[in-house]
Amino acid sequence: MQIDVDRSSREPIYRQLAAGLQQRIRSGALPPQTRLPTVRQLAEQLGVTRLTVHSAYAELQSGGWVEATVGRGTFVAAQIEGLIAPPEAQLGRELTPAGMVADILRMSQLPGMISMAKADPAHEFFPLRNWQRAMEQAMESGGPLMMGYTTAQGDLRLRSTLAEVIRERGVSAGPDEIIVTAGVTNGMALITDLLTRPGDTVLVEQPTYLGMLNILSSRGVRAVGLPVDGEGLVIEALEAALRRERPAYLYTIPTFQNPSGVSMRPERRAALLDLAERHGLTVVEDDIYGRLSYEGAAPPALKAADRSGRVIYMSSFSKSLMPGLRIGYIAAAPELIRKLVYLRQAQDLCSPPLTQRALALFIEQGWWHSHMKRMLPRYRERRDALVGAMERFFPAEVRWTRPQGGFSCWVTLPPGTAVTDLYMIAISRGVAFTPGAVFSATPNPEPHLRFCFSAEPPERLADAVASLGGLLRERGGGRSLAAPALSDYVPVV
Amino acid sequence: MQIDVDRSSREPIYRQLAAGLQQRIRSGALPPQTRLPTVRQLAEQLGVTRLTVHSAYAELQSGGWVEATVGRGTFVAAQIEGLIAPPEAQLGRELTPAGMVADILRMSQLPGMISMAKADPAHEFFPLRNWQRAMEQAMESGGPLMMGYTTAQGDLRLRSTLAEVIRERGVSAGPDEIIVTAGVTNGMALITDLLTRPGDTVLVEQPTYLGMLNILSSRGVRAVGLPVDGEGLVIEALEAALRRERPAYLYTIPTFQNPSGVSMRPERRAALLDLAERHGLTVVEDDIYGRLSYEGAAPPALKAADRSGRVIYMSSFSKSLMPGLRIGYIAAAPELIRKLVYLRQAQDLCSPPLTQRALALFIEQGWWHSHMKRMLPRYRERRDALVGAMERFFPAEVRWTRPQGGFSCWVTLPPGTAVTDLYMIAISRGVAFTPGAVFSATPNPEPHLRFCFSAEPPERLADAVASLGGLLRERGGGRSLAAPALSDYVPVV
Repeated sequence: MQIDVDRSSREPIYRQLAAGLQQRIRSGALPPQTRLPTVRQLAEQLGVTRLTVHSAYAELQSGGWVEATVGRGTFVAAQIEGLIAPPEAQLGRELTPAGMVADILRMSQLPGMISMAKADPAHEFFPLRNWQRAMEQAMESGGPLMMGYTTAQGDLRLRSTLAEVIRERGVSAGPDEIIVTAGVTNGMALITDLLTRPGDTVLVEQPTYLGMLNILSSRGVRAVGLPVDGEGLVIEALEAALRRERPAYLYTIPTFQNPSGVSMRPERRAALLDLAERHGLTVVEDDIYGRLSYEGAAPPALKAADRSGRVIYMSSFSKSLMPGLRIGYIAAAPELIRKLVYLRQAQDLCSPPLTQRALALFIEQGWWHSHMKRMLPRYRERRDALVGAMERFFPAEVRWTRPQGGFSCWVTLPPGTAVTDLYMIAISRGVAFTPGAVFSATPNPEPHLRFCFSAEPPERLADAVASLGGLLRERGGGRSLAAPALSDYVPVV
Repeated sequence: MQIDVDRSSREPIYRQLAAGLQQRIRSGALPPQTRLPTVRQLAEQLGVTRLTVHSAYAELQSGGWVEATVGRGTFVAAQIEGLIAPPEAQLGRELTPAGMVADILRMSQLPGMISMAKADPAHEFFPLRNWQRAMEQAMESGGPLMMGYTTAQGDLRLRSTLAEVIRERGVSAGPDEIIVTAGVTNGMALITDLLTRPGDTVLVEQPTYLGMLNILSSRGVRAVGLPVDGEGLVIEALEAALRRERPAYLYTIPTFQNPSGVSMRPERRAALLDLAERHGLTVVEDDIYGRLSYEGAAPPALKAADRSGRVIYMSSFSKSLMPGLRIGYIAAAPELIRKLVYLRQAQDLCSPPLTQRALALFIEQGWWHSHMKRMLPRYRERRDALVGAMERFFPAEVRWTRPQGGFSCWVTLPPGTAVTDLYMIAISRGVAFTPGAVFSATPNPEPHLRFCFSAEPPERLADAVASLGGLLRERGGGRSLAAPALSDYVPVV
């Protein structure tokens, strides 16, 4: 392995070495899972001390670029696989929802990237120790049944706990009116499979969660977007759509919406329920952010005021706890739950019983509530850092929402800004966000960005905004944002 | 609580008390999660010693009927929920695949039942300690990423390990040609969503895995059954079907088939691949039992001899390790894997990263192989106990397969035997199996049963067969197997 080190540079040699190795990993010259030379070998080869090589490896390891396994050696990290696409793969690349979901999932694992691209909870605060305790408790009390098959509807103990959890959002449902799902995305997929056929229409907010658009397009269902303003879904637009369309259902995130960060005002909620009743409209409510309120109490769930049983309620623990649990749930009428149970059987039989039981125990012992209590000030701080930095660094013609909860902030750029170029350059400078277009069911001429502030500490959010502010001002000063040479934005994901 | 104890009986009082409580739980008088009186309260109320009550509770607890939580008390077990259906619910009940899947999943949790109904690995040998170690190792080495989102294709480290695992079955595929699924059932669901539209035809073996029939019917896809004899799928029937039909694919379990217990002979495998190539037929191979051979080496996977890339290979760890992992996988051409990745994103985003990484570490350390090595003689012993008991206790006109691997034995009863009646009575006597009709895509006049021998120890299998032998002989002696009074077969599941 040939890595040039410049002994006259002020940069320490170990950092030059780390940078050289990182560059080789990024370019694909050292693919994932490649074994690196031993410390002794590389030190001899380059004529540096072992401490220098050791320090370089430690730096790479702390950045997630390599993994060390005692007794086996040091390897290029497995999780960076797929992050380093060959430049050709980027040519003529379209920002489709499906491609973007894949991108976001991969990009989130790119070491060193300041990522505002993903509505991801803060990993550094994950309550890993209590989670391990809850798993041990579940295994002790449940024994081998925890590793067997379980019912498709889900662990009764968890469903009983969930019945209490949703009561705190104003929703009353018994354990028989709840089904456990593999996250809220899975809830949407099951509901769509139950209520739609190819060619049907579903009404969504515009912008909306792109996983939803992905689900609809994969099933050949047409998504019709209804505008969202600062007070949530525009009810007049819904009313007009209901005169034109016979939608299978309306999908809404009324509380701390993703990606807009907006909550639906109480009067609009009442008007929506009223319209649903008059038109026989089924409303699918995604309450995944409903717990994450940074300014006093969140509004109760839409379903809390649903007298006629038209609202199907969904949520999950991916934002308020940890997404790797892959646990969400649906609350609805028992007949509907029974049908969803059959669909779940025909999808993957059941969610892992150990995770389900451990989650029930985790919640019952108050650990979920105390985790959220601890997180709310952190997320509020991050939201404030993001908004504060935009006020400071962004040109005056850029606008944004100030979310009172959730993870997303919606940024509106001056007309004509080339968002894809901005996205590409930003990634080449180590900052990731999501271009707004992917959240739209129907094309939207306004250039938007989604910034998620949940996964990065305040300083890094400020750095990212400062960097993007510079890019936007360059353009504002008359300089072009044309895409750079392809080689400049490896690794683009 | 009023429970009668007969002090003059030879049955110890604590057992009478346990039986009385069990009866109340079964009848629904004490619903799941009801708190039982304290030992002191019940002892005072019934005028018995505390030791008596304590012994009764311990007996119920060891049978899974109640759960004790230190400091909170003793509760009717949550997992028996749904097992005690009201008798009316059983009237006019049809044995559909969907209903049967639900039944089997619930029945498996019924305390005291000798269950041959479910192709379930032996819970008492689950390698729980090593699994917990692997999870701890995954958490230690992977950190918070193990509780985050991951890629829909699955953990690269697990896919690299799986590439080596399938090589042992003669299949070569790189990590990019593998997708992790939530069990093999999920693999089939994804493949079906990718390759079929409602109204399409899929060829299946008759009998076949009922989860597959469930998947096809939930998607409006027509299943056409092709006969299986003692040497596997009848190739002439496939050839005839290919002249008539244009199937989206053929689903086969060539090795240790469920439910027949039969393996496809080498000549038939070659003929099948030849036909597939000539007719452009896609073959979906389910190799879930391929590791569980009780007589020397299993035949290599069908895909091992697939020169033209027409075979899609699927397997999982539900039978060879533990079903609660909910981890399976598909190996196929990269283009197909990419499409499946998009479908997985539109289903539930990803499998839990912690479970995936822990499984990789579990396999890499040899624990999976040593677990199987330990299990094979156990399962062989159970197979022998089942077959031996049938030889001893069953009337001469009953026939059965002698499976060389897997979990299932296929029993053929004399024409005209009322299988549903037999099923109901057997359950009322504490023995569960699966009526053969549910495994058939098209009605089959022959009365069949599936016995799974994997989940019960030899003595209990012999007891179950003796009991069923008695029932079959009663009928043989001219007595009717008419369904008994409904109250007699509570709890029917």
